[in-house]
This record gives sequence, structure tokens and C-alpha cells, in this order.
Amino acid sequence: MLSNSSPLMVFSGQSNCALAQEICNVLGTTLGQSETQKFTNDNLVVRYKQSLREADVFIVQSFSSPVSDSIMELLLMIDAAKSASAARVTAVIPYYSYARSDKKDEPRISIAGRLVADLIQAAGADRVLTMTLHSPQVHGFFKIPVDHLSAEVVIAEHLQQTVDGFSDGVVLAPDAGDIKRASALARRLDSGLAFIDKRRTSDTTVNARALIGDVQGRKVFIVDDEISTAGSLVEAVNLAKANGADSVHVAVTHGVYTGPAVERIHGLDVVEVCSTNTVDVPYSKIERSGGKLKTLSVAPLFAKAIQHIHTGESVSALFE
Amino acid sequence: MLSNSSPLMVFSGQSNCALAQEICNVLGTTLGQSETQKFTNDNLVVRYKQSLREADVFIVQSFSSPVSDSIMELLLMIDAAKSASAARVTAVIPYYSYARSDKKDEPRISIAGRLVADLIQAAGADRVLTMTLHSPQVHGFFKIPVDHLSAEVVIAEHLQQTVDGFSDGVVLAPDAGDIKRASALARRLDSGLAFIDKRRTSDTTVNARALIGDVQGRKVFIVDDEISTAGSLVEAVNLAKANGADSVHVAVTHGVYTGPAVERIHGLDVVEVCSTNTVDVPYSKIERSGGKLKTLSVAPLFAKAIQHIHTGESVSALFE
Amino acid sequence: MLSNSSPLMVFSGQSNCALAQEICNVLGTTLGQSETQKFTNDNLVVRYKQSLREADVFIVQSFSSPVSDSIMELLLMIDAAKSASAARVTAVIPYYSYARSDKKDEPRISIAGRLVADLIQAAGADRVLTMTLHSPQVHGFFKIPVDHLSAEVVIAEHLQQTVDGFSDGVVLAPDAGDIKRASALARRLDSGLAFIDKRRTSDTTVNARALIGDVQGRKVFIVDDEISTAGSLVEAVNLAKANGADSVHVAVTHGVYTGPAVERIHGLDVVEVCSTNTVDVPYSKIERSGGKLKTLSVAPLFAKAIQHIHTGESVSALFE
Amino acid sequence: MLSNSSPLMVFSGQSNCALAQEICNVLGTTLGQSETQKFTNDNLVVRYKQSLREADVFIVQSFSSPVSDSIMELLLMIDAAKSASAARVTAVIPYYSYARSDKKDEPRISIAGRLVADLIQAAGADRVLTMTLHSPQVHGFFKIPVDHLSAEVVIAEHLQQTVDGFSDGVVLAPDAGDIKRASALARRLDSGLAFIDKRRTSDTTVNARALIGDVQGRKVFIVDDEISTAGSLVEAVNLAKANGADSVHVAVTHGVYTGPAVERIHGLDVVEVCSTNTVDVPYSKIERSGGKLKTLSVAPLFAKAIQHIHTGESVSALFE
Amino acid sequence: MLSNSSPLMVFSGQSNCALAQEICNVLGTTLGQSETQKFTNDNLVVRYKQSLREADVFIVQSFSSPVSDSIMELLLMIDAAKSASAARVTAVIPYYSYARSDKKDEPRISIAGRLVADLIQAAGADRVLTMTLHSPQVHGFFKIPVDHLSAEVVIAEHLQQTVDGFSDGVVLAPDAGDIKRASALARRLDSGLAFIDKRRTSDTTVNARALIGDVQGRKVFIVDDEISTAGSLVEAVNLAKANGADSVHVAVTHGVYTGPAVERIHGLDVVEVCSTNTVDVPYSKIERSGGKLKTLSVAPLFAKAIQHIHTGESVSALFE
Amino acid sequence: MLSNSSPLMVFSGQSNCALAQEICNVLGTTLGQSETQKFTNDNLVVRYKQSLREADVFIVQSFSSPVSDSIMELLLMIDAAKSASAARVTAVIPYYSYARSDKKDEPRISIAGRLVADLIQAAGADRVLTMTLHSPQVHGFFKIPVDHLSAEVVIAEHLQQTVDGFSDGVVLAPDAGDIKRASALARRLDSGLAFIDKRRTSDTTVNARALIGDVQGRKVFIVDDEISTAGSLVEAVNLAKANGADSVHVAVTHGVYTGPAVERIHGLDVVEVCSTNTVDVPYSKIERSGGKLKTLSVAPLFAKAIQHIHTGESVSALFE
Repeated sequence: MLSNSSPLMVFSGQSNCALAQEICNVLGTTLGQSETQKFTNDNLVVRYKQSLREADVFIVQSFSSPVSDSIMELLLMIDAAKSASAARVTAVIPYYSYARSDKKDEPRISIAGRLVADLIQAAGADRVLTMTLHSPQVHGFFKIPVDHLSAEVVIAEHLQQTVDGFSDGVVLAPDAGDIKRASALARRLDSGLAFIDKRRTSDTTVNARALIGDVQGRKVFIVDDEISTAGSLVEAVNLAKANGADSVHVAVTHGVYTGPAVERIHGLDVVEVCSTNTVDVPYSKIERSGGKLKTLSVAPLFAKAIQHIHTGESVSALFE
Repeated sequence: MLSNSSPLMVFSGQSNCALAQEICNVLGTTLGQSETQKFTNDNLVVRYKQSLREADVFIVQSFSSPVSDSIMELLLMIDAAKSASAARVTAVIPYYSYARSDKKDEPRISIAGRLVADLIQAAGADRVLTMTLHSPQVHGFFKIPVDHLSAEVVIAEHLQQTVDGFSDGVVLAPDAGDIKRASALARRLDSGLAFIDKRRTSDTTVNARALIGDVQGRKVFIVDDEISTAGSLVEAVNLAKANGADSVHVAVTHGVYTGPAVERIHGLDVVEVCSTNTVDVPYSKIERSGGKLKTLSVAPLFAKAIQHIHTGESVSALFE
Repeated sequence: MLSNSSPLMVFSGQSNCALAQEICNVLGTTLGQSETQKFTNDNLVVRYKQSLREADVFIVQSFSSPVSDSIMELLLMIDAAKSASAARVTAVIPYYSYARSDKKDEPRISIAGRLVADLIQAAGADRVLTMTLHSPQVHGFFKIPVDHLSAEVVIAEHLQQTVDGFSDGVVLAPDAGDIKRASALARRLDSGLAFIDKRRTSDTTVNARALIGDVQGRKVFIVDDEISTAGSLVEAVNLAKANGADSVHVAVTHGVYTGPAVERIHGLDVVEVCSTNTVDVPYSKIERSGGKLKTLSVAPLFAKAIQHIHTGESVSALFE
Repeated sequence: MLSNSSPLMVFSGQSNCALAQEICNVLGTTLGQSETQKFTNDNLVVRYKQSLREADVFIVQSFSSPVSDSIMELLLMIDAAKSASAARVTAVIPYYSYARSDKKDEPRISIAGRLVADLIQAAGADRVLTMTLHSPQVHGFFKIPVDHLSAEVVIAEHLQQTVDGFSDGVVLAPDAGDIKRASALARRLDSGLAFIDKRRTSDTTVNARALIGDVQGRKVFIVDDEISTAGSLVEAVNLAKANGADSVHVAVTHGVYTGPAVERIHGLDVVEVCSTNTVDVPYSKIERSGGKLKTLSVAPLFAKAIQHIHTGESVSALFE
Repeated sequence: MLSNSSPLMVFSGQSNCALAQEICNVLGTTLGQSETQKFTNDNLVVRYKQSLREADVFIVQSFSSPVSDSIMELLLMIDAAKSASAARVTAVIPYYSYARSDKKDEPRISIAGRLVADLIQAAGADRVLTMTLHSPQVHGFFKIPVDHLSAEVVIAEHLQQTVDGFSDGVVLAPDAGDIKRASALARRLDSGLAFIDKRRTSDTTVNARALIGDVQGRKVFIVDDEISTAGSLVEAVNLAKANGADSVHVAVTHGVYTGPAVERIHGLDVVEVCSTNTVDVPYSKIERSGGKLKTLSVAPLFAKAIQHIHTGESVSALFE
Repeated sequence: MLSNSSPLMVFSGQSNCALAQEICNVLGTTLGQSETQKFTNDNLVVRYKQSLREADVFIVQSFSSPVSDSIMELLLMIDAAKSASAARVTAVIPYYSYARSDKKDEPRISIAGRLVADLIQAAGADRVLTMTLHSPQVHGFFKIPVDHLSAEVVIAEHLQQTVDGFSDGVVLAPDAGDIKRASALARRLDSGLAFIDKRRTSDTTVNARALIGDVQGRKVFIVDDEISTAGSLVEAVNLAKANGADSVHVAVTHGVYTGPAVERIHGLDVVEVCSTNTVDVPYSKIERSGGKLKTLSVAPLFAKAIQHIHTGESVSALFE
């Protein structure tokens, strides 16, 4: 718990300094000074360049590529902050990549979403602030308090402002696991709902997939938590088009865009592919996509949440 | 870890002695002697009537009504076993009811599935053996090793043996959250797939629901993880019928059947409502259902898993 | 630790809302809004209806019947409060029933008083406030700070105000384990002391008991920590009478009154049976006892202790 | 848990090597080789002189004077054994002195019996074997399994063998807190029971005490858990004599005999003062007591318990 | 974390009350009232004589002889303070003697520096404030925050003020392990550096040692972390003299001076042997040393560090 | 603890498969089958391809570049092994790179050697087997048992076999922190000792360094724990040569050889630069060094240690 006099301090790891800076701008505060280097033996070293004794520290770090370095850097920053007598350390993880490893769908694997949660707690974090976990159950992998933000409002507002007749459209979940998320957005847009049954195949063909629901002649909004190589996105767009979709908009929270993603999107018959800036999308990628990539900023959301955590106001009230 | 000489011992709480006894029968062992009483102030007391020092102890307890007593009894049995020097204690929880509390879908609630997992570990359990958790992510709420069994094979075999032309049928998920489970069963039966979008309503009507997929003239298999009051089951059956279903079979893992469930099922236009015996279904309920309730035994599955855990053989191999 | 600005909030479980409300009245605060329900599968769910972020939260819950539900509800309330970012959570447990399970007087049982303490800590409680533990050693079952109140002052004042010539009376401990408690009260009343050796029997008779001390022609005050079925109370009263007691008053902290207790007390030759309101004694019980049951309120004591905990004043000073 | 091939090894701290050696003699094993020294800065250092990798290690150490050194030595021995890869470490603590600090009878003290239990667990002990804890609740201060032996059989047999007409005697508890222990011995001897109410004083006299019960003309057996300076023993003996006791025998578990104890006993009008050897009673003390001190060996009891723990047989069965 | 209103309170164990009092004098605060006694069975008991609820508590205790008592007393004080609801407890350990047990240089010993750190944390300390650990790695034995002060400035200033031509002198490390410490002082004094290779011997002579570096005709400053029996100091001085040293000054942080130390120093050809007051050096020792012992006070350093910890200012800034 | 029937299984991460394979060859066992992949979002996933239930699992992973991936992979492998019911998991970390971060030599950094130890324990490792930690105190950063091997014997034997007149040589420590290691090797070789005082500079020159000791006309053996960019090695060699060294041999445990290391070594006036294979040194590096790089295998040492850990024989005995 914080006394009133604990100063709010925001620090950033290397993975998404732009977002951290933008959060500070919204908060009207200066980004804290810290430094991360690699020793010659490839060990990371983190130094805070200012005292954070008894401060209310927020460390912004997305788990984007190189992911292992991003995680190690965050763990070192948490540990260094605690041992430097920070009053409270909140790990702000806009993109918690390992949330996808949330169950044991094969024998003898790690439920890495839980393991990484344990590591963050072992390093000494007092709280976590994150956005759009792959499944909401991942919240329960943490024992410490978690504020779990959603980009749904930001995405819904964007579609409402940019798409005419959005409520005649259909929200398409590219996988059964996404239906709850798609359904929530459909309610917000007052639009239809459809999904793709990814695993269902006929006896003879492995690759066939069923689009369940009706998209014929309608604007289709494909939503997902993240896009990495865009492989399943290509399939979803093609299936939507093959089922008669009028046009396709894509909106996701985490625009990871790895490997061939940008080139694939460049060649895709979509109006736009929109993500938030939980993962930094450099301008070069936007150019290479032929301008199809768009980013929506979640910095205002994170800034408000940080402000409320700091002052003890309700965070859930932010979303009502 | 166990030495070869640690004897295998199975004990049972009060919630499902019949299943525990049946597991012992399959294992060819005697159910361990223990006693649970209530003090006059309503406190539970558990006593083991035989030494379990250095034994490999399995305690069978489902979280069925009264659930709080079932949980407290299990916790007391775990604690008493550990402090009586059991070599290893495995909590065998055929029905882990709090798995349904797996996320924070409202502010200021407990993710009770995680809390109960913490309690079981605080009491001293070394392992957990369970079946069909409401969502597979609940596995990750435990730090100790979990063997997570599935009733899918038992249910699929039952439908294949009792329903003619099962592969022309359609598996119907009564909720978007059940689609993965339904989809897996559909693949096993080589049948179709449909689901009900529970939350989708028009502007004016709250109660309308959409059945997405095609069930016209086909045999419908409604699958779910559990039935309690059967309220949503009634809706699902009616919706299936309204959409032209030829006949409806219902198959779930956990037949909790509380409140008006049995009477509702008695009046329902279904061929049968089938569950496993993770929760004890007394004969009186079967009678009152007009014979529509059926139970499939998972005792052989649990017995095999216990045997493999005891001897150190692969449990996942049981399901290949 | 709390900053000055952390608001004090008192919430109540279902077991003794009347006491919680009375504590709030004394404190001049409003009872916090929360809601406890049962899902159809008998799972409990707890919801706080107001933000408690950074608040100093006190949750009042006695472990009275149904005890397992009372404990589970408290654990859920603690967990939900911590994950909703309460600054500090104090479990206020006026009646900690499992304190009676404080030792291993049989092999292979649980020392459940310790287990329940571990569960409360696993759920995340920061402190405990309780009253008249069955034995004072139970305090040491908790690692977190405990404030352990005593009803002795309240009971002594009541006897001093209502019994003429109280210092000529004799305090009678119904069991050797109660002697320290009885002795303290006797010093406060400046009265005599006696006890019953419950286990001592002759070779041939099991039921005979010895009253050690002198009660002939004197007013007898039987004191104990709790009365549940009143079985041993009946024996104590009869033994006192058989040894020539002039009259008998009974005063205990926890009036659990289960099973035949009220009827037994109705038929008992005592002036009154007095308890505090750590356990709620409904009016119907008082009526059925023929008016023999009396309750003394400990709400002022709990309110003062909560106030002192909140502001950081000495709690032990309350009792000097 | 132990495999069959884990060798049993018994080591000893410095506090009671004689008992450790006697236990080894009964077990037919050799006392393990270890060495404890003090560095020049008064730090203790412990070295095992033989490999104990994967061994079942028992470390015998009583908490006798100098107590702090005895505790630190035990903690170092536990830590060194665990980090030297012992399979299991059992702390054998015949006399757990801090059990007397079992409650908070003053504000702002430590319940040191719990603290020391935490330290033993922090050092890495897997189990504890101890005897006659001051109060049985101290058992619950440990989370790890505890085997709690009693010297009652040894003491009872000694009295039965050496005192004619023992069943016409009276067991006298020198304090209300000892009554349960005294009562158990009285049942075993089939004798009477009395106790001293230590705190009860008249208005004018502080030092007067009441002996409650009848000892006139009878042989009195004063029993207690320990004797240190023998101050309260002197009072108890005098009070028994003043109440007409024919003769007095004293029997306790832990013969600590500090300060003026031996001289006081030398001058006391008792037949004998008998203790077990949980604390080493050197021959010089026996001489100085005028031969009144006697010791009974509990080495056979400890040896049997260690044997049963090692092989996984019931320990409680030893006492039936 | 502390609110502004948490009062700063300093308490002292028995090992170095003089230093604690001097720290309080510098802070302008009154030493807190507490009391430590020994029960007749040699158990320690600690009582705080004033409320410390919600206070920011600092407990000053050096691990000087009797070391085991000093450690036990500190652990009891920490535990009692936490359970008396102190807001935060900082263990101020000017001399952490077990830091010398920092590695496993023999098989089957304890790394006691880590064990004692674990004990301090198990007792409930929130922070540690200490000075000149034998090796700086011992800092990492603690998980809680540690402020690690150095006496280097105090010692350097003393030499600069009292030794003419100090920068023409040579700092001599009596052991290879001390070189880093010696080198840092040499930089501060702008003087030379030399060391003694303690283990290097010729084939035939065990006791010969090499002084590596040049001390011929120069003032030699022998520095070390502590002196206990002064055995290796005598060797170092002799070796320096044998290598032609003009004069020898000795300066260490921890003046433990056990056994023959004072007499040895009395006979030693040195200008002075100077230590800080982390360990209390009674006047009688100074006299017996022929006035060669000097003490430098580190109370101002500790007072400033405590002040900064209390108010949340940078502690490292104190040393820049 | 392991029963006799627990099979020994060795698995390897990606960082040094060659060493893991060589260890298996020495043990006469087959390297366990596992698979590590990266998901498209750069998350690692680890799968064991065979059952390891109740097995005694050893996972070989050096923390070589990319270090963060190496650590994350090891943590995932430990977690997956534990949750797949391995009986015991030993992390075999031939090169524990973060041991260099063993103290707080700047404010507000992490003692990362401790943090990584905590992470390994949080992931569930039961033991650690490692070699030549940068400082021996790092051993104490682990609470679980550590077997800490040394390459000293291997290196000494190599020098004795390949260098004529080795005992007339001088072991040169390139930094004061290496003197203990150098001194131990010097004793084993019966040779001289010298060291470089890295930080000592005159008033006017920053880069000058002092070589303390005598190397004129002698064979110099530079020893260190690791070489990464070889920057300080170049300085040490040049300083040795400038001080008249006849020839220079270099021998280290961990040949990390990053950045310009190989090119620097190629141009260096040394007979050879020898390391063990704790870090994999590919053949291409050896070629590029002009054949100056040599590797000594520590696979036999690790194999013996693993064998002894598995069977419970003394590991320290291996080094006597």
C-alpha cells in the first residue's frame, strides 16, 4: 500500500519505449531514467539512474521479439527496483505473449503462461497491468493483483467511426476460441456474428474449413487477440471472401507481425488491418504493407489505469 | 517420489463413496478405513483408522453438494494424511466444481478456481487427479502436477454403441465456450457441428438466441461439461427442436442435477441424458427422471490413472 | 501498512450480519455493500458492490453453522478483496470454532485449528481479530498478527451488576482445561474457584465425576468458552447442585446452542445462561429457552479494536 | 519419502551426546561422525566427517543450556545436512525448551515456541521427533510432521515398581496448566488427583496458595513437565506437607536443574526427584543432591520411534 | 511501505547498546524501551515496553559474543515487533559475523551466512542495514532489501588526519581476499598497494608467506574487515616489518578482539590498531592494549542511513 | 529422494548439445528425446518426446549466447519436467554466466546471480550441478543443494603434460579477484604467483596498471574463470610480456569468445589459449584463431558427478 507521498514513476524496458513515452505524455510525467546494456558475455545489466526509494514504480515492457530478452529485462528491472527500495512495483505488460501457452494440449509441455507469471512474482512484482490476455483464465495464473484491460472499446470506436453501416456487418471469429471476444464486439456494434471451425475437416480433405454463420454480401470484421505471421488471417480472409463477404476489415489487439506477415497483408484483399500499439509497429512495416496496417493507441487507457492504480480509484469504473 | 515399497492406499471422502469403492474394485484393493464426523459445533473431524505412514495415498472426493463441506473434508483429509507421514498424497477430484470460477468476468470477485487450488496446495497435496475441468486453463491454476482426464472416450463410445447413424448427426455446443469440446467429439464421431450463441440478442428481445449451424432433420448430440439445474439444457433442447432436429441426445461429464433438474429432464423431449459418475447419481433421481438419466462409469479410467501414477508409467499413454 | 488516507471499510459474511451491523453503528460507519450467492452447482460466489481499492478492509465472519460455508465464504471474501486491491484485509472472526481442534489427542487426525489458520493466510489475509480462542496457544497457529480479545470484562461486569454478593460465590470450571480462564474470572470477582475432573472415574463406574473444591451453599458461576449441545453443561449444573450449590449462573463467550441445547437449558435449574453475541442468538431461541438465554454485546469491544487497528493505536491498552 | 536403501544415520549436537550415544546403542548403530567448533569470532561451524548423501539423517539435540548455542548448532546441522544432499533430515529434540513460550500472556512478546518452529523449518528440517511439549498445542506450531512422544509410561512404571500402595496415593499438579497431564497419570496409577491454584490469593496475602483436593495422610506424586530452578517445586512440596501429605515423590520429564535447583532439592523433604534423560543430568549433580535425583532413560523410546520412522511403521502403535 | 505518519523508533538488543544510544543521540530521538531477560531454563524473552503499532522500527544488534544469544535475541525482537503490528522492521546489524561463512570451502558444512539471512527473513524482517560484509556477495544472500554501508570513508579520513605523508604509504592486504578492499582504500589515499599470499609455501616450510609488492621504508596501512584473536595480524605486522616497513598502522571495521587479541596487540610494533564501534570496545580493553586500540564512531553514518530509509531518500547518495 | 528404480535420464537444451551428448557417451546412456521450437510470436515451446514420470532427470544447459533464450529454455524444461512428474530434476549448468553479477557494485542494479537462482528454484529445480562459479559465494545464492565442480584438475593436468618446467613458471591472475583461484593452481603446479592490480593508476595516467610479482624470464600461466571479448586478456598478455615474461599460456574454464575475441587471440603472442567445453567452441573458431584455441573436455567430470548424484555416492570424494 502506498502513502500519498509516494511519487509515481514510469520506467520502460527496451521493447516498446514509444508506448511508455506516450503513456508518460498523457500522464504529464517524465519517463524515468534507466539503462539496459549487455555485458560482453551477453548477460543483461539494468541500472536505474535516479533514486526510486519509496516510489510507486511502473515498468512498461511488452513481451515482443526478442521475447526472452524482453522477459529477462523485465525480471531484472523488477528485482533491481525492489532491492532499491521501491515502495511498490507494477509490471505493465501490454502484450503478455506467453498467455497463448495456457493449457496442456500436449503431454509433457510447460503451461508457460503460468511459469512466466511465477517468474514475475519470484522477481518481486507487486501487481500486473496487462491487456487482452489470450484467454481470460490467464488472469488466474497470477496470485498478485492484476488489472486486465481490454482494447475492445478502442477497436469498436474505430470501426464505428470509419465504417459506414457497421451494424449491418458481421463479426467473424477466426477460431472457436475467439467467439466470446467476437460476440462481445458484435454486441457493442450491434452486428452479426460468425466463426470458423478450424479443426473440422471432411474425411478426405485436411485443409477444408467451415465458416459457420452468414457473411454473404456483408461487411466482415475479423477480430482476434493477435496476428503474428498472419497465416491463419490469410485463410480467414479467403474463406470470408469465398463465402461472399462484401469487404473485410481486420482488427486485433496485438500486432506482432513477424516473418512474412507484412508481405502477406500487403497482398491481402482487405480494407485495413488494424492493431493497437501494445507491440510497437515501426513505420517501415506500415509502408511495406502498402498502408494497410493501422495502429490505434492504447496509451490513454494505460495512462488512466496507472493513474487510478496510483491514487486508489476504481479501475473497473474506467470501463463502465 | 516413491520407493517401490510404498503401498498404494485409496481413501474416500463422503461425497462419492460409490465411485471410490468402484475404483478400488477395479484396482483389486480394499478401500482405506477412515471416518468423518461432525462435532456438536458443526466442525468436521477426520480420522484415519489405519496407519498410512510412508504410503502412496489417494483421496477421492468430488466437490458435489454440500460443496463447502466436501472441500473442507478433503482439506482435512490431506492435512491429516501428511501429518500422519504419508509418503505422497494425491487429491483425486473427479468433479472440481469451482473450475467454473475461472476468470474475472465481473469486478471484485474471486477467481475461486485458483483460490481452491491454492487451498489444496496449502493443505499439503502433492498431486491432483481430476476430470474435465470447465476450461483447460484451470490446469494452470495448480503448481503441483495435475493429471487431467477426459470423459470424451467414454461418451463417444457410448454414442457410437447406442445411436444408429451417429456420424450423420450433429454435435451441438450449448454455448460458445463449449465449442472446442464439442468440436473434439464431432471429430471423434465424424459428425457435424453447431453451436448456440447465448448472448446474442436483438435490440428489443433479450431472450432470443441464435443456433448457428444446421441441425434440420438430424440427430443432435448436446454436449457440455456439467448439468446443474438444467435450465440452459432446456433452452438448448428447445432451440434444437425448433430448428428441426430429428432427435436429441445429451451427454455430459458431470451430472450434478440440482434443484428442478430431474423434473425438467423428465419433461424434456430427449432420448436420454447421460452423464458419468464423477458425481454420484442416486437411483432415486434416475427413477424420477422417467428413466431418462443414464450414467457411464469412469471408475476404470480413474483406476488406470491411479495405477500408472503409483507405478510411474505414462498417464498420457492411456489416452492415445 | 496503511497511509492515513486509506478509508476504513467493514464488510460482513452471512454468519453474523447483526454483529457486523452493530459494530458499524458503534463506529459510526456504513456496513460495506457485498453480496454472497450460491451458483446452481452449490458453489459460493462473492461480489463487492463498491470499490475497495487501497481501503483498510475488515471482514466480519463467525464460524457458526453451517461452518464449512462460513469458512469458504470468508476465504472467498478475503481473496476477492485482495485481488480487488484492498490495502489491507483483516479477518474479524468473533468465533473461531476450529480452535477446539488444537492438538493431536488421537493419532492420524488434523490439527484443524492450524490448518484453517493456514487457509486464511493462503487466501491472503493480512491480520486476524478474534475473541476467546479455546486455548491461547491457538494464537501461535497464525504467522500474521493476531489481536486476541477477551470477553472476560464484559462477563465480569454483567455478573457484578446482576448478582448480589458475587464475591461470596464460586467460579466453577467444567473441565480442567478451563481452569485458567475460571481462575482469571475468580480473581476479577474476588470469588472462590472449583473445577470438575471430567475424566476421573472409579474402577466400576464410568460416569461418576469429581467436583474438586467447595460449592456448598454458595452461588456458582459456571464459565466456559462455548456451549454447543449443552451436554456437559447439564452435567456440570447437576454436579454443582448435587454438591450443594445455592444457585447456578452460566456465562460463556460463544453461545453456539446447537441440537438439543435450547431445550436442555429450558429444563435446567439455573438462574440464567449468558453468552456474548459472537455467534448470533436469534430471538426464537431465547423464547424457547424460557427466557433463560441472555446475550451480552461485544460489538463495542470489536469496534474499539478495529478503530485502534485502523489508526495504529495500542489494542492491548484497551484491556488495561 | 525414503527408498529402502537409504541408510539410517544418527548424529548428535553437543547438548546431550550421552543420550544420542545410548539411542545408537539401542539401535545397534554407530553414532555418525561430525564436529562442531567455534571460530575465533564466536561463530559456530559444523562439519560432517562422512558422506550423508541420500541418507535418512536424525540429528539429536536438546535445547538445554546454553540454549541459544544449542539451537544455532541444530540449525547449522540441519542446513549442512540438507545441502550435503541428505535424503531426509529429522530433528530429534528431546527437550524443546521454547515450548513454554506458547502464548501471548503479555503484550508485545514473541510466541517463541512458534518462532523456533519456523526457524527449524527454514533451516530445512523434514520432520521433528520430540517429547512432552509444555502444552500439546505446540505440536501445531509445526507444519512439518511431528512425532510427539510422552514419558508418561516410563514414569508410571517407575512409580509402580518403586512405591508400595501407589494407587492409594494422590497425583498433585503444581499448577492448573498441569492438570491434564496429572489426570492422565492418575488414571494410569488408579490414584487420586489434586492441584494447586497458583494465582489465587486472598485480599491481604499475596503468597498464600490453595491446594485443591485431599492429600491428608497420603503419598503424593508431584508431576510436571520440567524443573529448572525448583522454586515452584519447593512451594508445592511444602504445601503438600502442610496439607498433611505422608510422603512426596516428584517425577518430571525434563530435569533442567539450573541455578539453585540441586541445592534446593538436597534440602527438600521428598523421597526422590526423578526425571528422564532428555536433558543430560551429570553425575556431579546427583551427588550434590544427596542422591535424591534419579534419572530414567528414554533412549529406548526414542530408538524405537526412530526405527519406526525409518521403516515406515506406525509410531502411535508404540504407545498403545 | 510507510506512510508519513509512521513514527521512527530505534530499539536495541543487548550486544551494542552504546552504539544504539549514540545513533539515537545523532537522530535526536529517544532509544525505545524494551527488555530482554532469561527464563530460568536459559530461554530468552523479549518485551517491548511501549506500543510500536504501525511504527517504522529499527532494531540495532551486532553479532558479537555471545553470538548465538545475539542472533536469537534479534530474531525474537523481530518476531515480537511484527506480531505487535510494527509497520516495518529493519534489522540493523552493524557486525554480521556469519558473513565469513560465505562459501563451501570444505564439503558438508553450512554456508551459514546464507542460513542466518534466511532465519532473519523467516522471523519477519522487512529490511537489513549492515556494514562491511566480509565479502560483498553476502548481500545477495538476502532477498529483502539490504543497505550495505562501508566504513571506508571514516577510516580514510582518520588516516588522512593522523598520518603525515599518507600518500607515500602502502596499503597492505593481509590476505588475497582483502585486495579489493585494500585497493579501494589505496585509491582514496592515493597510496601504494601490496598483499600477502597467505597460502603460498615452499616445499619444505609451511609457515613461510610471501609479501607481494614493495613496503621497504614506507608507512604501511594494514586493512581488514575484522580482527578477532589478532593471530594473522601479528603475522602481517611481522612480515611488513621484516620487509622493511617504516611503521605500521592497522585499521579495520569490526574490532572483535577475542581471546589473546588485546595482549597480542599490546606487544605489537604498531602505531595504533583502529576499529569502528560496530562491535563495542570497552574501555578496559583499550587500557589493556597500552592505548594502542582506537575506535572511530560509525553512529553518524548509521543515523543518516536510518533517517534516509525512514524518509525515503537515497542512501547511496550518502556515499557519493 | 530417489528410489533405486528411478531411471537416470539426461536431456539437453540447445546451448551445448555436444557436451550433453559426450556426457551421455561417458555414462553409456542415450540422450533423452526432447524438442524446442519457437512459435511464430517468438515464444519458446519445449516438448519431451518420451515419458519421464518418476525419472531422475538431468537437464544440461549452459548460459551461453543467446543467454536469455538459454535461461528461458532451461526454465521451461524444468517446469515441463516437474509437471510431467519427474521424480527429481537437476539443472546441470556448466556455465552459469550470471555468476558475474554477484554483488551490488553500483546502486540500483540487480544482483542477477541471485535473481536467476531464484528463477531456477521457482521453476521447480531440485538441485543444481555447475562448474567454476565466478565467485564461490554464488553457491550460497541457491537454497537447493548445489554441486560445484572445478576445472582446476583438468587445467593443471593439461599444463603439467604440455609445458616443460611448469613448476618454474608463474601463475598470473589478471585481476585481484582471481588471486584465490590463481593461488590454488600455483600450489598444484608448485609454481610462482603474480597478479595485476587493475584499478591502480597514477595521478596522471588512467590506463597504466601494475603487475605485482615477478615474471621476468619465466613461463607465465594466465588463468581466469572466463574469456568473453578477450579485452582484458590482451592487456594481461601485453603486461606480462612488457615485464619480461618468457612465454604465455592462457587457461580458463569458460571459453565464451564473443565479438572480437577470436581475432584478438589470433594476433596475440601466446602459446595457446585453452578452455574447457562448458561453452561449446565450434571448430570454425578454432580455425580462425590460427589454432591457438584449445579445448579440454569436462564431460568425464560431469558424467561422474551425475552418476554419483544418481546413486547417492559422495561427489566431494571425486575431487580428493
